This record gives sequence, C-alpha cells and structure tokens, in this order.
Amino acid sequence: MQPPASPPRATIADVAREAGVHASTVSRALNPATRGMVTEAVALRVTEVADRLGWRPSAVAAGLRTRKSRTIGILVPDLINPIFPPILHAVETVLAARGYVTLVANTDNDAARESLLIERMATHLVDGLILASAAAGTDALSLCARFGIPAVLINRRMPEGAGCAAVSAITNDDSHGIGLAVDHLVSLGHRRIAHLAGPQGVSTARDRRAGFLDRMRQHGLAPVAVVDAAAYTREAGRAAMTALLDGAGCTAVAVANDMLCLGVYDAMEAAGRRVAADISVTGFNDMPFVDRIHPALTTIRIQHDAMGRQAACILLAEMADPAAARQDIRLVPELVIRASTAPPAKGP
Amino acid sequence: MQPPASPPRATIADVAREAGVHASTVSRALNPATRGMVTEAVALRVTEVADRLGWRPSAVAAGLRTRKSRTIGILVPDLINPIFPPILHAVETVLAARGYVTLVANTDNDAARESLLIERMATHLVDGLILASAAAGTDALSLCARFGIPAVLINRRMPEGAGCAAVSAITNDDSHGIGLAVDHLVSLGHRRIAHLAGPQGVSTARDRRAGFLDRMRQHGLAPVAVVDAAAYTREAGRAAMTALLDGAGCTAVAVANDMLCLGVYDAMEAAGRRVAADISVTGFNDMPFVDRIHPALTTIRIQHDAMGRQAACILLAEMADPAAARQDIRLVPELVIRASTAPPAKGP
Repeated sequence: MQPPASPPRATIADVAREAGVHASTVSRALNPATRGMVTEAVALRVTEVADRLGWRPSAVAAGLRTRKSRTIGILVPDLINPIFPPILHAVETVLAARGYVTLVANTDNDAARESLLIERMATHLVDGLILASAAAGTDALSLCARFGIPAVLINRRMPEGAGCAAVSAITNDDSHGIGLAVDHLVSLGHRRIAHLAGPQGVSTARDRRAGFLDRMRQHGLAPVAVVDAAAYTREAGRAAMTALLDGAGCTAVAVANDMLCLGVYDAMEAAGRRVAADISVTGFNDMPFVDRIHPALTTIRIQHDAMGRQAACILLAEMADPAAARQDIRLVPELVIRASTAPPAKGP
Repeated sequence: MQPPASPPRATIADVAREAGVHASTVSRALNPATRGMVTEAVALRVTEVADRLGWRPSAVAAGLRTRKSRTIGILVPDLINPIFPPILHAVETVLAARGYVTLVANTDNDAARESLLIERMATHLVDGLILASAAAGTDALSLCARFGIPAVLINRRMPEGAGCAAVSAITNDDSHGIGLAVDHLVSLGHRRIAHLAGPQGVSTARDRRAGFLDRMRQHGLAPVAVVDAAAYTREAGRAAMTALLDGAGCTAVAVANDMLCLGVYDAMEAAGRRVAADISVTGFNDMPFVDRIHPALTTIRIQHDAMGRQAACILLAEMADPAAARQDIRLVPELVIRASTAPPAKGP
C-alpha cells in the first residue's frame, strides 16, 4: 500500500515566479547576512511569498557551500560574575556592526563542558571563538585548531606551561594592576598586608599573586599571609577570608578580584570586623555595582570596553587573514579609590 | 595544466579499520551527543586515529539527516542585569544533564536584533529556544513558528494584545509580588507611596504597575505618583527617581525592579536624601548582590532556580511532543526585608 500523496513542496523557483524576482534575489532576501543587498520592499515581498508557499531556504546546504555562519561564539567561565557582561557587550557591538551575531556559552569552569561547547559550536558552523575561559587543563585551543576555528583569548591568557599554539590574547596588565593596589595600601601607612589570591590554574590569579609579591618586595615588605581561594566566587572568598582572619593579624588585604571581595565582606561581617576601619580591602576589575556595596570598594578598574572591542576586531582580522601575526595585548588598568581603604587603625 | 593531485582524503572506513571498530562506532565516538554510548577507551582510540588521518565527521550532513543539534538557544534582553545569570544557570544545569548545550544571546531590548538572532539560530539548527526577551513589538514567536522551533517564555509573558499563538510561559506572579511590597510599606506606617514603574512594553512592568494600583486601592490609598522608567537600567532608574523627587513628596517608593533601584540610590544620593531614613525603597527580583548594597535592599525575591529549571523541562517536553498542552505557570515570589525600608520620618 502506498502512503497518501502529499502536496508537492514549493521550490525556490515557485517563490521567485510568484514574487516576480530572480531566484538569486529570493536567496539573498531570505538570508539575514545578505538581506541588506536587496531593497526593503523586495525583502518583504519575498518573505511574504515564501511564508505563504511554505518554502524556506536550505540553510544547511547554504552553510555547506560557504562554510560561513556569520556567528561568533564567546565562552565565559562563569556568567554570574558581572565582570563579563560589559566585555560581552563591547564584543557584540563591534560584531553586530559587521553583521555578525554572538552566542555566549558558559563553561562553568569545567574543561569537559568547555570541550563539548566547542565541539557543538564547531559542528554548527560558528565562524570564530572568543575565549574568556582559559585555564590550566583546557583543551580549548587544540580543539579550535582541530576544527579550524579562529580563536582569540580575552581577560585570561593560557597559564604558563600549558604549551599551546600561538594565539592572540587581550588581557590586563595584572602585575601592574595589583602593584597599584599595594602602592595605595602602603601610601596609607599599611605594612601588615595580606593577599587573598584567586584559583592558581588561571593566569589572572597567578599574575596578580606574583605581582603582589614583587611589589611588596620593592617596598621592602614581607606579606603577612597569602591565601589562595578555591575559585573566583563569593563563597570561596568568604572561606579564604575566614582562614585569613584566623591567622596572623593584617591591617589590609589586597584581593585578587571583586567577586571574592563580596565574600570577604561577608566573612568580616560574620567576625565582627569592619571593612576600612579595622581592615582595608582592595578588589580587582571594578565590576558593575561595586560602587554601591558598603563600603564602596576601592579596586583596580580594567578596560572592559576596550578589551571586548579589541578582541572582536582582532578575531575578524584573523578570520579574514589566517596568516595575520598573532597579538599579545596588555591593557593598563587603573586604581579607583573608594571607601574600603583607610589608614591602619592605631594599635591598642 | 592540471592542479597537483592532493592525497586522497581519509574516509570513515579508513578510521574504522585503523581503530579496529565498526564505522557506526566511529560515528558514535566522535559525536558529543552519543559519545556516552561507547567506552572511554574506544572513544579515545577513535579520536586519536581520526586526528591522525585528518578525518572528521560531516556534522552538517549529520544535521541534515537528523535535524537535531542538541543545542538550545536562550535569548535575554539585557545581559548586564544580574537577574538573568542565576536563571540561565538553572536552565543549563537541567539541559546539560540531558546532553544539551545552551547558547545565550543578548537582544539588547532590540526587536530587530532579536529577529536576526532567531533567524541565525534557526538556520543553524538550534533545537529549541527559551525567550526571556518578550516585549511589545517582538516578532519572536512568529519567527519561531515559521522556522519550526519550539519556544518557551521565561520571566516575561507576551504583553496583552500582542496577539500570538499559544506558548508556554514560566513567569512570576508580579501582581502578588508588588502587593507584598505595598503591604510591607503600609504596615510600616507609610501612606504617601509612589511607584517607579518599568518600561510599559514589558509584561513585568505592566503587571507590577497594575498590581501596585490594585493593592493601594485595597488599602484605601491613592498613589502619590507613578513614574514610568524608560528601560530597566540603572540610568533610567536615576532619571525617573530624579523626576519623582522633584514632584509631590512621598515617604516611600515601590520600584519595579532592582536594577532601577541602583539608579534610585544614585538619584537620592545626588539630592542629599537618605534611603530608609528619608524615603523607603523596595525593589523586585532579589538579584545577586543587592544584599550588599547600602542600605541593603528590601525586595521581592523571585524563584530564579525554579524558573530556569521548569522552563528547561517544559521545553524538552514540547520538543518531544509538539502537541503537548501549553502551560502558563506563575511562580509565587516572597518579600525579603532588609535595610532600605523603615517607618516614615516624623513630619517637621
């Protein structure tokens, strides 16, 4: 027994005839990347006819032909950290102006999830990747190379010793930045300064830790303590600060990033210690809203917008010319003084 | 003249022979969605051989066959608003456990950008969409219908009168929530209460505004003023609060969301007015970190996690059974009392 005959499916020729245009115009009008090449009136007419006849372009076939999706992926390690949205916004702004859309994926600091995301993106024709998730143990760059996806790093470089192909990176001068925090604390009169460091598989944490120790040495000071947080989270910041408070007394702590500072404030509140009055606290990133926490956070402002824009431009350039020289850009951060730092309290 | 002959390309049969497995095993081992069906040792061996021979699966052809990408898109209206990351995290958690990856796209409250994102995602085989970006003027649902993409709304419903096909939505009981804020302010003794509303093209703003007026009426009170913010941003909150402060005096303001409250604090600081002591302020959402702003924000806590998880489950169910009954779920929010509300100051 034969299945009942279904009505013949419309073809691109049917749509072209009905709309009174050439088939290539139909194709252009229905492809978001080329729609700008036809007039608005034609685009509307073609869309209307295609909808009515139930025809839509074989995008997959089109993808096979051109291998271009005009889509850029962005991997972030932790979407809860408000440092990333302003950077993503800058990336999107540049790419949208060039007709690209951006898709954000959250690795949750999980190398296996990162690999899965890259594979999924690769097999669905993402044109390029911006990685904010570089960390020890990642396969990201080798996967990108295997799939032929141009990639650029932002915010974090590959940690030393992770042995990987040359890749462009737009990062902060983390060593300089943490040095500004140390200088500020020393200028206020602090000598008993601790460092609450980030997770040591990440370049920002390693570079800020090393930069802290260097600058302390330059001031002729030994750190009271250095405690590594397990992750760049509020909870890990609280745990690390609780450990610090149990140890030798410090009058100031230079913290590796602003998210950790939220937990530092929690730990100090729980211990009955006042930020600034008892212990000065500095952050890193100037993430959104830390001007409104209490006391407002003294921190190191990174160039979120410049980072995002430069990453987008460099990625586009490397997509256009795969042989383009790789770039290693360090953006210079600046100190923002607010209310979480003060001269050390007089001894008892 | 003929081009130089390139070496013959490896086929799946070459990889299978070299790895000592059946071709279907090669296919399974190299597809992230099915890798779990082979042993780790086999997956590693096949990957190693495929890399060495330079063979990779024709994912596009595979996509054509199955029309499944095991990828879910999520559209958010504004990634800077920290209400979204916890919701996205809940969505991701559920979907990752089922082998799906999630890609986040930011519409920036721009209907044209939203359309472009949906078209781009559709033509690259996103299996489903979760829309947090519903607003007046959107084409999102008709585009999803045209492309045959199952879609579920979160946080915002389609505004009344936007005339659209039935679609599942997981939202907050916004009317109840703002009522809790009014009850709290009235119980503190406030009678001169204003509402700082959100942008009126969005269901959350309309429902909270209507709910505010209803509950005020139930208390026998007339609002001192209702001012609509132009957008759910800190800047729009500052502008709207500045306008409110210029008008008839209020002792309390129920604000449509927490992002706006950051701007409300800015405006009050600029005007030399103290939050709580001079004017009580309530927010909506309990977005991350508002417990750390000063004074800590009294707000309406929505169920971020439940919202994300339910959206993911409902979308998966509708993908499995397109005829599944659509659901309209309202999650019940709760009042969280912190330090931004207090009894009204005694008159002069």
